[in-house]
Amino acid sequence: MPLRAEIIAIGDELTSGQRLDTNTQWLSERLGELGVEVAFHTTVGDSLEDHVAILRAAFERADVVVTTGGLGPTADDLTRDALAKAVGAALVEDPVALAHIERMFASRGRTMPANNRLQALFPHGSRQIPNAHGTAPGIDMAVRSADGNKSRVFCLPGVPAEMHEMWSATVRGAVAAMAPEARVLVTRKLKCFGVGESRLEEMLPDLIRRGREPRVGVTASGATLTLRVTAGGPDEAACLAVIEPTLDVIHQSLGMLVFGAEDDELQHAVVRLLGERGETIVSVEAATSGLLSHWLAEADEAGAVYRSGEFLPTHGDCTTEEWALNAAEAKRVAMGVDYALAIGSPNAADDPTVPVAMASAAGGKARSVSTLGQPAILKARLAKTALNLLRLRLLGSSELE
Amino acid sequence: MPLRAEIIAIGDELTSGQRLDTNTQWLSERLGELGVEVAFHTTVGDSLEDHVAILRAAFERADVVVTTGGLGPTADDLTRDALAKAVGAALVEDPVALAHIERMFASRGRTMPANNRLQALFPHGSRQIPNAHGTAPGIDMAVRSADGNKSRVFCLPGVPAEMHEMWSATVRGAVAAMAPEARVLVTRKLKCFGVGESRLEEMLPDLIRRGREPRVGVTASGATLTLRVTAGGPDEAACLAVIEPTLDVIHQSLGMLVFGAEDDELQHAVVRLLGERGETIVSVEAATSGLLSHWLAEADEAGAVYRSGEFLPTHGDCTTEEWALNAAEAKRVAMGVDYALAIGSPNAADDPTVPVAMASAAGGKARSVSTLGQPAILKARLAKTALNLLRLRLLGSSELE
Repeated sequence: MPLRAEIIAIGDELTSGQRLDTNTQWLSERLGELGVEVAFHTTVGDSLEDHVAILRAAFERADVVVTTGGLGPTADDLTRDALAKAVGAALVEDPVALAHIERMFASRGRTMPANNRLQALFPHGSRQIPNAHGTAPGIDMAVRSADGNKSRVFCLPGVPAEMHEMWSATVRGAVAAMAPEARVLVTRKLKCFGVGESRLEEMLPDLIRRGREPRVGVTASGATLTLRVTAGGPDEAACLAVIEPTLDVIHQSLGMLVFGAEDDELQHAVVRLLGERGETIVSVEAATSGLLSHWLAEADEAGAVYRSGEFLPTHGDCTTEEWALNAAEAKRVAMGVDYALAIGSPNAADDPTVPVAMASAAGGKARSVSTLGQPAILKARLAKTALNLLRLRLLGSSELE
Repeated sequence: MPLRAEIIAIGDELTSGQRLDTNTQWLSERLGELGVEVAFHTTVGDSLEDHVAILRAAFERADVVVTTGGLGPTADDLTRDALAKAVGAALVEDPVALAHIERMFASRGRTMPANNRLQALFPHGSRQIPNAHGTAPGIDMAVRSADGNKSRVFCLPGVPAEMHEMWSATVRGAVAAMAPEARVLVTRKLKCFGVGESRLEEMLPDLIRRGREPRVGVTASGATLTLRVTAGGPDEAACLAVIEPTLDVIHQSLGMLVFGAEDDELQHAVVRLLGERGETIVSVEAATSGLLSHWLAEADEAGAVYRSGEFLPTHGDCTTEEWALNAAEAKRVAMGVDYALAIGSPNAADDPTVPVAMASAAGGKARSVSTLGQPAILKARLAKTALNLLRLRLLGSSELE
């Protein structure tokens, strides 16, 4: 029997619908990777009574309970109180936690407000989960419900960056240790650009079928398609042995449409290719509001290949392929780099398009991208089209550009 | 006492984290608009036993229960069975519903698969909720829990378009009729920057207190604090009459810390102030990877005030306040605009900081921002610090810059 888990998200801003809860999905995926079956998600507002009742119900039906939120320093942060009350334990101030919180404030040159002292309170018998990036440590506690069921509860903050770090550094290992004959679930992703979802499915006969092992799914996000290949097994190596032949079939079927794996985006593929060749790039853009520059700068963490980016507001000249080619080439020569990308603005015709161009010493290439389709992803489509022009050139596939 | 509601979302694809649940948020907002307090969200996988237990628990603690999902024709669609079992009612085939389902298939030129006959089964004593856009009608049933609590349950499909239509056409009216003295819930948000969450709370004595009317809550996201003021009443005007004095108190207590309302970010405040004055701005940045430029370009949709943005990779020179002041002023003069913002790169000292500067004809201002704290929000903090320097200058508060 796999361990059964319940995830509890806390806060009026969630129950009222003012904020969309993405933490619960993230935790569900992480628990699933450890072979833990997530049986329930529960969300409760900032009411102590409801909070206590929800924790007690969870301790009766789940082996692992992970809570997110409610550990802040303010009066509406109730997780500490609710857990203490649910298990009938006293809250005790921990001097080590208090010192950590004081240090966090001191390192930012501030004195600790009195409220933050609450974050050093822990139910008697619990352990702290260190929080490297924030003031509130988490809580790890073994509990026994009214009907005798044993569970382990992990209370984490609602701030995603803190929650992620604490999961990876502490909670993941603790949960894995609870399931000695763990079954793991492994997923590998391939990323594609340049084709629609239905066409992609047609190119992969029999792969996207219910009940197939390994399972293959497709999701679309901002004109990028993600293929997910998932298999379960006793360990990661066993899962990968099942997954890899399917990845090979996908690569053979899709060829250059696959630009990367896992969390790669097109800018990562482009930065990697340029880095391997020791080449450099600049950009200039209008309609995309600096998105292309932001993506390239984030992807080029080392500052090795992306030399400069410029945002210009839309103006009358920049609506033609000729403008885009000239702007890219002028920028490339002025900055003394190998490649430049340029993105213009929509022309005012009945069939509006935005010019996108790539310049290189061996010559440029331009395309006009239609602005029809989902407006919400237009900027992403434009920036990705520019990046893909360069990617295909770097791969020596100018016939596909 | 407002009605209390629970929303139940159904499906393994939700509990496993493969799909993000957005239906629950949507239903929460709709119930809130009717003055119904959503106390709990619950998600359960495709297990009949768990499903029955979850429904029974909901009938004990909620007046209104809305479920989404589990009404399809396949073996893993369990809502009909679970509801019948939870309330101890037999499932009865409804000829009108069956005729509707057969018609839906006929209208698409297809014969009805045998499985879809299941969708015409309803617990004895329930009513159908018409589904104009799909095969599965919903279920509306008055129930009494084991402890005698009376509730009303509405089962809706998980397909968002069908769920939305059925809510608007049928469920909204039914829920409103349950609360004869209908109450609406209204929320107004104020956005703050430049202070931590605990400090903000100290500046608002008694406002963030349990049971206070209107309720005030604080959430932090990327160094921006959002204050939510929420009141219930017979209509929007009545709610606003309760909310507005609290907004005034917040403005008086926080002064310039409040930069906007509702979905405003700092760049919207800055673009608005510049627009009112007919002034213009440019930017140059390194450590923030073009984030400042992207924000300003998106906020200045009309292209009226933001004239140019430049991204430079990190280099040795750009780690001092002197560099930032000079870079901003040089860019401001070169582009012939009123203001410029510059963001440098971290220096390599033991106490690393990033210089941020604002240049104007009346003189500049620089600050060194510590890179300690959450790495995930460092770029946002830097860009917001730069925008806030300019905002305070535009408001004539140079002493606060």
